Amino acid sequence: MFQEKKMSEDYKEMWANMGLDLEAHDALLEVLGKGYQDIYLAQKNRPEGMGYFDFVMSEVHSLRIKELLDEKAAGRKVIGAYCVFVPEEIVLAANATLVGLCSGADFATEEVEKFLPRNTCSLIKSSFGFKLGKVCPYLECSDMIVGENTCDGKKKSYETLKILVPNLYIMDIPQMKSPEGRALLKAEYIRFKEAVEELTGVTVDADSLKKGIEIVNSKRKAVQRLMRLRKAIPVPISGLDALLANQVFFYDNPARFTDSVNKICDELEARIEKKEGVFPEDTPRILVSGCPMAVPNWKLPWIIETSGAVIVGEESCVGERGTRNLTNDSANTVDELIEAIADRYFNIDCAIFTPNPDRLNHILEMAETCNADGVIHYGLQFCQPYLMEAIPVEKALEEKNIPTLRIDTDYTMEDVGQLKTRVEAFVELLK
Amino acid sequence: MFQEKKMSEDYKEMWANMGLDLEAHDALLEVLGKGYQDIYLAQKNRPEGMGYFDFVMSEVHSLRIKELLDEKAAGRKVIGAYCVFVPEEIVLAANATLVGLCSGADFATEEVEKFLPRNTCSLIKSSFGFKLGKVCPYLECSDMIVGENTCDGKKKSYETLKILVPNLYIMDIPQMKSPEGRALLKAEYIRFKEAVEELTGVTVDADSLKKGIEIVNSKRKAVQRLMRLRKAIPVPISGLDALLANQVFFYDNPARFTDSVNKICDELEARIEKKEGVFPEDTPRILVSGCPMAVPNWKLPWIIETSGAVIVGEESCVGERGTRNLTNDSANTVDELIEAIADRYFNIDCAIFTPNPDRLNHILEMAETCNADGVIHYGLQFCQPYLMEAIPVEKALEEKNIPTLRIDTDYTMEDVGQLKTRVEAFVELLK
Ligand code: SF4
Ligand code: SF4
Ligand code: SF4
Ligand code: SF4
Repeated sequence: MFQEKKMSEDYKEMWANMGLDLEAHDALLEVLGKGYQDIYLAQKNRPEGMGYFDFVMSEVHSLRIKELLDEKAAGRKVIGAYCVFVPEEIVLAANATLVGLCSGADFATEEVEKFLPRNTCSLIKSSFGFKLGKVCPYLECSDMIVGENTCDGKKKSYETLKILVPNLYIMDIPQMKSPEGRALLKAEYIRFKEAVEELTGVTVDADSLKKGIEIVNSKRKAVQRLMRLRKAIPVPISGLDALLANQVFFYDNPARFTDSVNKICDELEARIEKKEGVFPEDTPRILVSGCPMAVPNWKLPWIIETSGAVIVGEESCVGERGTRNLTNDSANTVDELIEAIADRYFNIDCAIFTPNPDRLNHILEMAETCNADGVIHYGLQFCQPYLMEAIPVEKALEEKNIPTLRIDTDYTMEDVGQLKTRVEAFVELLK
Repeated sequence: MFQEKKMSEDYKEMWANMGLDLEAHDALLEVLGKGYQDIYLAQKNRPEGMGYFDFVMSEVHSLRIKELLDEKAAGRKVIGAYCVFVPEEIVLAANATLVGLCSGADFATEEVEKFLPRNTCSLIKSSFGFKLGKVCPYLECSDMIVGENTCDGKKKSYETLKILVPNLYIMDIPQMKSPEGRALLKAEYIRFKEAVEELTGVTVDADSLKKGIEIVNSKRKAVQRLMRLRKAIPVPISGLDALLANQVFFYDNPARFTDSVNKICDELEARIEKKEGVFPEDTPRILVSGCPMAVPNWKLPWIIETSGAVIVGEESCVGERGTRNLTNDSANTVDELIEAIADRYFNIDCAIFTPNPDRLNHILEMAETCNADGVIHYGLQFCQPYLMEAIPVEKALEEKNIPTLRIDTDYTMEDVGQLKTRVEAFVELLK
């Protein structure tokens, strides 16, 4: 997959011009391609519509980047972000494109540890590694990169990242869902709108904001439809494939993404009609909850779905936490629309908030609507917010007699065998 | 020391009535007493005035607790806090007493790990251990306990602590030194004043607030005087003893503490006059910077001062970061005085803030005024804010040709040998 494209001399030149390290980049694409082959293409009974995502993934560093560069050549700006708190509505309203930068693989680890403590979560290390290793074309083509004060790790590491990425913009995020917290978020969104306007030279008005909201809502609605359909018994799509849709959400052209997801949904509806599943009907059903999984972090889902279970939902920012809420677009002034955007994002139940009862309620609700037999809580090592919250989450689930397994891991492959043993034992318990 | 008191039947009854686990508490006192003996009383050339602190420490769980209980019997409230962001001025103005709860020793570790991830800093684990092990009389006699949203670890662990400590009050803290951050802090101090008024039944007015400010400022001025005097060459007081003064700051009666520190200062002035030091004049001088050290966390200072060096300053919340700023008491209304308090505390350069240039500047300034030959950055394992900040701090110091050693550790004694080797090598370098 990925390997074929890297041969193309056109792309080589494009990557070189962006300042990528061609050799390192080739190595990354090779690992990516191999992983995709072994994990994704090895699956059976995949919906045909997934072919589109296979294509997207094969072109994730090539055709999609070419598109972004063409947009840039035509005067459009590209903005990169590390968190679902960065409102795509505002970016689109300013005629710019938002891309997700969350990174899902270790890279240049030795170099990274000169800048970050070893006890840093893999997600943060990975974003440094992609920068230091010069292998992320999204990062390199972004005109502005938005960091946010969510967890301590990101908050503090952005101070160092700013040295490597001078066009880093920092967005402050509240820690409590208080009136002051709400006011802070709104003020930050207004400041962000101004910064984006400054970058693009485009003034955001009510019409463009409404249009931006509409595009993002459509994308969310398509994914919400997919997430509803996958809850059927038997499951019409694997958890890995559903996760991929949630991941591509952050990279693809929004309108094209929306169409493609809706096409898969049509296909799933036909499958459900015929009671056709990707796994046997009695396959234990797992809800995964916790830290976001960025491409190509497919380790745990792959372990789960090759251990006799199927994933029926992701309570994650790359999943329902990120997409379940729509933005109200009924208002008619910029201020009211920003208010609606702040309302929407203030609902995100990330573990950085204290207290964070909504997340627990959402996990319980998902476990029920997904008909989950058990929950696997996924925590990245050294991620204090999610690891801390995992303990009361586990307690609450077990009080409701929902079997729960807490997995703390990182991006290395060293613990795969051990994790597989634990997951298999858990799945056995659910049968 | 500590052991003698534990024999007293009077105190046994007092502790039992507070709900302490007598057996566990005896064990803790024994360890504390032994540590104090080996680390503090083993020192040579101590100022005579330190006798007061030896007494305070020997009575830290007995006479001082008796005093607090007597205050409580007379209707006064006791408030416990885990962070220097909790304004003692307001507590005193409401005729209540503030005590520090930061805990400096592992306790009930196995029990703690049922509530917290293993990858949690020792300070947080210790505060849980002291609660779960029922060994902290300060915690048990507090009518209100204040937690604050500083680092992720504390912020999230308070959610769980609240189950164990129902009288936990949460104070929100900003993450940036922006106008919004400043407004948040002030709003939180007003809310805190109201909560304290509610608890005590005492209305805070301008007079009581001015009086509170005066008492705390006096205590700070005494410690500032001590910190100035210790910078003399040769050093008239050991770093361990100076640290102890900074630690007792959080427990003792403020007026008595102020007097005692001033008495030591008089003695130090006489020593300086006579060029009398605790260590030879050419002893390498170390500035320690980083995470706070709560009683009885004397591990690193003890290693340093038994490795041929002397500590000449603590850039720490149990040290100059906590005490270097005074509160302006010139205003005449409650609102203006709260404003002055917010101004004072908003200057604290804790690593939870982003960016945090003041801390780096303060470290450089201290290194200079202390005539430090080198800096040891002290980070608690899993403390993201300080471990992250340590890397740019080290870089900046080395650019100024100030030798720097980064030590990341915890409360266990397992790494003492290894740390001693590293510290000795560093000290050798400074000679
Ligand atoms: S988990 Fe929290 S910090 Fe991470 S992307 Fe989601 S909202 Fe942002
Ligand atoms: S996984 Fe946790 S520590 Fe890592 S970036 Fe996300 S919230 Fe922060
Ligand atoms: S280091 Fe920060 S969180 Fe800790 S006591 Fe100091 S101000 Fe509070
Ligand atoms: S040492 Fe660090 S992690 Fe621990 S409580 Fe203090 S700021 Fe938080």
